[in-house]
Amino acid sequence: MSPNATAAEEPVTTTRPRLADLDLPLGKRVRLHRLLYEHGVGNGTLMVLPIDQGIEHGPVDFFSNPAAKNPEFQWRLAAEGGYNAIACHWGLAARYMERYAGRVPLILKINGKTNIPSDEEAFSPLTSTVEDAVALGADAIGYTLYVGSPRQDDDSLQFLEVREQCEKYAMPIIVWAYPRGAAIEEKGGRDSLYAVDYAARLAHELGADVIKLNVPKKSDKDPQQPKPYDQLEWSYEEGVRRVVESAGNSMVLFSGGSKMGDADLLEKARLAMDQGATGLIFGRNMWQRPMEEALAMTERIKDLLRKYSR
Amino acid sequence: MSPNATAAEEPVTTTRPRLADLDLPLGKRVRLHRLLYEHGVGNGTLMVLPIDQGIEHGPVDFFSNPAAKNPEFQWRLAAEGGYNAIACHWGLAARYMERYAGRVPLILKINGKTNIPSDEEAFSPLTSTVEDAVALGADAIGYTLYVGSPRQDDDSLQFLEVREQCEKYAMPIIVWAYPRGAAIEEKGGRDSLYAVDYAARLAHELGADVIKLNVPKKSDKDPQQPKPYDQLEWSYEEGVRRVVESAGNSMVLFSGGSKMGDADLLEKARLAMDQGATGLIFGRNMWQRPMEEALAMTERIKDLLRKYSR
Amino acid sequence: MSPNATAAEEPVTTTRPRLADLDLPLGKRVRLHRLLYEHGVGNGTLMVLPIDQGIEHGPVDFFSNPAAKNPEFQWRLAAEGGYNAIACHWGLAARYMERYAGRVPLILKINGKTNIPSDEEAFSPLTSTVEDAVALGADAIGYTLYVGSPRQDDDSLQFLEVREQCEKYAMPIIVWAYPRGAAIEEKGGRDSLYAVDYAARLAHELGADVIKLNVPKKSDKDPQQPKPYDQLEWSYEEGVRRVVESAGNSMVLFSGGSKMGDADLLEKARLAMDQGATGLIFGRNMWQRPMEEALAMTERIKDLLRKYSR
Amino acid sequence: MSPNATAAEEPVTTTRPRLADLDLPLGKRVRLHRLLYEHGVGNGTLMVLPIDQGIEHGPVDFFSNPAAKNPEFQWRLAAEGGYNAIACHWGLAARYMERYAGRVPLILKINGKTNIPSDEEAFSPLTSTVEDAVALGADAIGYTLYVGSPRQDDDSLQFLEVREQCEKYAMPIIVWAYPRGAAIEEKGGRDSLYAVDYAARLAHELGADVIKLNVPKKSDKDPQQPKPYDQLEWSYEEGVRRVVESAGNSMVLFSGGSKMGDADLLEKARLAMDQGATGLIFGRNMWQRPMEEALAMTERIKDLLRKYSR
Amino acid sequence: MSPNATAAEEPVTTTRPRLADLDLPLGKRVRLHRLLYEHGVGNGTLMVLPIDQGIEHGPVDFFSNPAAKNPEFQWRLAAEGGYNAIACHWGLAARYMERYAGRVPLILKINGKTNIPSDEEAFSPLTSTVEDAVALGADAIGYTLYVGSPRQDDDSLQFLEVREQCEKYAMPIIVWAYPRGAAIEEKGGRDSLYAVDYAARLAHELGADVIKLNVPKKSDKDPQQPKPYDQLEWSYEEGVRRVVESAGNSMVLFSGGSKMGDADLLEKARLAMDQGATGLIFGRNMWQRPMEEALAMTERIKDLLRKYSR
Repeated sequence: MSPNATAAEEPVTTTRPRLADLDLPLGKRVRLHRLLYEHGVGNGTLMVLPIDQGIEHGPVDFFSNPAAKNPEFQWRLAAEGGYNAIACHWGLAARYMERYAGRVPLILKINGKTNIPSDEEAFSPLTSTVEDAVALGADAIGYTLYVGSPRQDDDSLQFLEVREQCEKYAMPIIVWAYPRGAAIEEKGGRDSLYAVDYAARLAHELGADVIKLNVPKKSDKDPQQPKPYDQLEWSYEEGVRRVVESAGNSMVLFSGGSKMGDADLLEKARLAMDQGATGLIFGRNMWQRPMEEALAMTERIKDLLRKYSR
Repeated sequence: MSPNATAAEEPVTTTRPRLADLDLPLGKRVRLHRLLYEHGVGNGTLMVLPIDQGIEHGPVDFFSNPAAKNPEFQWRLAAEGGYNAIACHWGLAARYMERYAGRVPLILKINGKTNIPSDEEAFSPLTSTVEDAVALGADAIGYTLYVGSPRQDDDSLQFLEVREQCEKYAMPIIVWAYPRGAAIEEKGGRDSLYAVDYAARLAHELGADVIKLNVPKKSDKDPQQPKPYDQLEWSYEEGVRRVVESAGNSMVLFSGGSKMGDADLLEKARLAMDQGATGLIFGRNMWQRPMEEALAMTERIKDLLRKYSR
Repeated sequence: MSPNATAAEEPVTTTRPRLADLDLPLGKRVRLHRLLYEHGVGNGTLMVLPIDQGIEHGPVDFFSNPAAKNPEFQWRLAAEGGYNAIACHWGLAARYMERYAGRVPLILKINGKTNIPSDEEAFSPLTSTVEDAVALGADAIGYTLYVGSPRQDDDSLQFLEVREQCEKYAMPIIVWAYPRGAAIEEKGGRDSLYAVDYAARLAHELGADVIKLNVPKKSDKDPQQPKPYDQLEWSYEEGVRRVVESAGNSMVLFSGGSKMGDADLLEKARLAMDQGATGLIFGRNMWQRPMEEALAMTERIKDLLRKYSR
Repeated sequence: MSPNATAAEEPVTTTRPRLADLDLPLGKRVRLHRLLYEHGVGNGTLMVLPIDQGIEHGPVDFFSNPAAKNPEFQWRLAAEGGYNAIACHWGLAARYMERYAGRVPLILKINGKTNIPSDEEAFSPLTSTVEDAVALGADAIGYTLYVGSPRQDDDSLQFLEVREQCEKYAMPIIVWAYPRGAAIEEKGGRDSLYAVDYAARLAHELGADVIKLNVPKKSDKDPQQPKPYDQLEWSYEEGVRRVVESAGNSMVLFSGGSKMGDADLLEKARLAMDQGATGLIFGRNMWQRPMEEALAMTERIKDLLRKYSR
Repeated sequence: MSPNATAAEEPVTTTRPRLADLDLPLGKRVRLHRLLYEHGVGNGTLMVLPIDQGIEHGPVDFFSNPAAKNPEFQWRLAAEGGYNAIACHWGLAARYMERYAGRVPLILKINGKTNIPSDEEAFSPLTSTVEDAVALGADAIGYTLYVGSPRQDDDSLQFLEVREQCEKYAMPIIVWAYPRGAAIEEKGGRDSLYAVDYAARLAHELGADVIKLNVPKKSDKDPQQPKPYDQLEWSYEEGVRRVVESAGNSMVLFSGGSKMGDADLLEKARLAMDQGATGLIFGRNMWQRPMEEALAMTERIKDLLRKYSR
């Protein structure tokens, strides 16, 4: 049922790209190989632990598990749980990575902002640089792109500078592709299929190696989406597959979002992987629990990922 | 009936400039010769396949032919159909061009934006650079100029930097000359003769080698155009010829716009070429159909172009 | 009746500065000498043919003489009519100058904009650079300064960069000193004596070598001018003389504006020269007529200029 | 009762970090050692005298003690009182430091602004550079970060440049982490626990070595804070401890704010130090009194700090 | 009655700083010595002739003495009257200084703007650079700082660049410290004691060597000033002394403002000098009269200044 089975005679990659098939410079290959095959489950999948919520949401996310307020918690979880990488800003990398250097790959998140002012004209400024990432021995950078924001021009130009630096150092780029801003909210909202689908394609055309997406959601605002999304009937399987396809041969990570039940979380992970995701980036769902519980859930996710070798 | 037949004694080029007659630096001659005479029909005409709609419109353009969502589709169509060039952003060039390198000339589209926020103050930020184009072996860059936008100052300054880089590397410049913004809508709209005519002249004076235009359209808003456009009587032949003349000795490409019937498309192509266009840049009209159909229509367009050797 | 006859014992230059009296770097002397004494009438006056209306007004200015739409028309008129220089943007210089290289001096107009959006916050962005002017063998650059615009800070900073580059290469600067913007319209309008007088002085203090002005006009809005302009009684001779004096020892060119009758045009030229202008910059009044007529009128203007040797 | 006692087996630093435990480059170690152990009480605590109120508030702060209007007053107080450092802008350092060079360590405050315009969109521009700090022999720079301001993007980018320069020269960074702007005022105000807590974490993640905070205050606007702060019950001890923890392993300084009674000031100092602060930065509370009184109070604060060796 | 007589045992400079006492780099000493002791009265005072009103107010200031419209008038007045320096923009320096080179020291005014648009968000852009000042052999630069303007951030950053360049070349900085903008007008106005006092302190902390101030004025808007200025009782002697003290060890120049009677002007000069000013910068009050009168008044001012040797 591949949509281009009839049109293309040669086999093409529509879902879950394989590193070996991609036309990437050598340094990107080295770093992505390290992330995909030398850590975590080691089978070409990704399980990333993000700890940038302190900037994006403030300390509020640490109330349910005060131990997690100390960044040491996440570094230890990433190390002991065997994640493919931890993703954080410069301050947490520079100040807590020492004991984990070389053991836990780093994705340096290089832009971010508080959620205190309105998101109507969202823009996420740099907090560090690609050269910082190189100096810290990072294996990728993370960049938040606010797709559809009225300030998309500033975002695009900032991203261009980042991408050029990443080309220079052959540093892989992971784009947090987030629909955001007043116009998005008028056209179905940030989690609508329209919005996530557009975000996936934009990040791909701009040159993302890996794209972080949210699973699209159905909502009352769906009829506000542009045609033909406003009338589209879709199952979650179809929705996830659609946005994975829109990401082209960029790899896709799905985020977990706010904390949910264990069964739901595992189901979300299975759904994502079945439809072609390369991996998962679960933060609050992992570290908003005591360490032992967090390690146990990590193990369950890894068991799941083992089924998706590539 | 050439308007300057009586005024100018020496022959001047009002329509369809010939490369050999233009005062261009050597590198531009090499690259334009490659585009005009070494690919496509090879007779000095141009047939370009654009695939930047994923940024400009989102994945919505792929619903009618899901196979086209995979950029491989367009690369293969360009190669098998024998287009003069494919025009796309950096992500699609860097990630899909490998198998077609040297076979399909590249026009690197170096700016773009989503259509999610309003176009009232449209501005199209860079997504790549002229140096990227050089590094990819491109034969031209494409730049969208939003003529008449309240942000025309940012656009003009950005274009200046691009032009200077293009002079440095002798890289041909193709300007997507698009009237846009609140003031344009008040003065007859983006497709009015006034708007397209002004866009053609502006792109020419700013230094475009090739200018992409839309065929001007008549509409109810015509009386809102500034004088004397508000009262002007014109046939489509006259309208197309007028904007071609306003482009001076820059070559002109006409775009296809949204999908139309085959007869209409061929008629549009004929109209454009008869009035002095150098070529066509048809995207959705070509790849919003199955591959075999697309290749067949490509062949019909090429047959037409064969009549316009220069 | 010179206003400072009693105050200053040494002779000072209040009107029509002579190149030999000015403290200018060598390169500016060479280029200005070429403009003033090696072309045109060759007696220290200037007759400049501008063709930047395609950017500033659009193709609308070519309706009355369609032949003039082809920039070849203006280049030929400048060459055959023996103008001191042609003034145009980079596109028209780079693409049409080849046959006239060295025969017609070039004033490269390095900024410009369309008149499509409102002029309330007018700003004229660069379309080329001083280095472009050097590379084209130009003898001066032209810069539009929008005096009194709310964006005067951007304009001033942009002009500073231009001036510094002009010092570096000893390239003469011709400032199109144009009052513009919401505040100007509230204080009597862009053509009021107040506005033109202020524009002349500002351009002079900022370092213009030559200043292009419009002849100030009386209007119903005169009482809105700041004191004492609101009550000032003046003849056109006095108005022109006043603004020429405000330009200090910068040379002054007067523009023609939109097309007028031949007698009026010659009278305007005489008025300007009698009151101390160095020359004229007439565009539409020259090329909005058939070539033969344009050449004839050019000859009449040259006859006039011969009376004002300096 | 350490919140992560059960979760983390290895000892982690939640309060009052010790310089020797931190992963810092050599130059930062040298300079911080000089501040912490070579001046003031010399036991790893900090007592800083700020004199930037002339920019932030104007001369109004000098009315109660006119002698303090002469910056010589504060330099002499810092020297004779034995402060760990004085914090001031370039003008006061360059013009008054000569006699105290090497005796009083300098924290160069490198950004600041007047409080004349509204703080709705607060942004604090640079007044000097990290290289200035190096040239003055400073041991740290101070930077005001307006957390939550609508202009947080400009602030973040400016801070990034500062941080990169600080990395280059291994110059310690002290962040004045100040919640500010319209959105903060709508969410409980600049001194709310929510605001100060978020500010501490943001400064930490962005890479502050030391963070200056205000003691959070309870107010009528507390219910406007986001959840769960709106309902949170807390003592001042808990509030201070909470924000100290949010600063991670960055050291914390508490400010004194406007002048208060001596008993209250000492109590505030004790509260801060008991909950893990590294030191105090008291300005108006010290120099808004005659020199002898100021020196006496300084001695009392130093006595207190002696109890908190680290 | 010196305010810090009791607090500070060592003598400190509260009024009229002496060059020999200041910690300044060698180049600033050379240039300030030239201004203070080698020209004018030569006793450490300053009498500066400004001619930047053509930019700030337009030619309107020349109506009462048309001879003054020719910049030659001011240059000759400065030379024959024996001023310490003339202060003007680049255009007037580059085009009129030749005959006075080395005879009249130059203060290059490097920023300025017209008064055509509103001053609600005043910002004064650069019109030349510190390097221009060096190239013209200037002995100082003049910079207008709009204290309290909503655009104070742009102003502060622009000033920082200027100051850094001035450090590089050891060029003295004279700040025109002007309260300006909507917030200032709401808080008592630009000439209120609050405003001028704040301006003096800000310029001092930012690193001005010399500060140009207006004499503060009492007005009906005084109660709108922030506390305690709103209730403050003060004589003009006290007001001037207060702002001179707020300028710290920066020297202070008082401006004359619009034309006033001779007795008032001399009284203003005496008041300023008695309260610790280093000198005067009188423009319209000097050149808005015939040359002989201007020279005579100049002599009277110099007689006064002779009493204030330092």
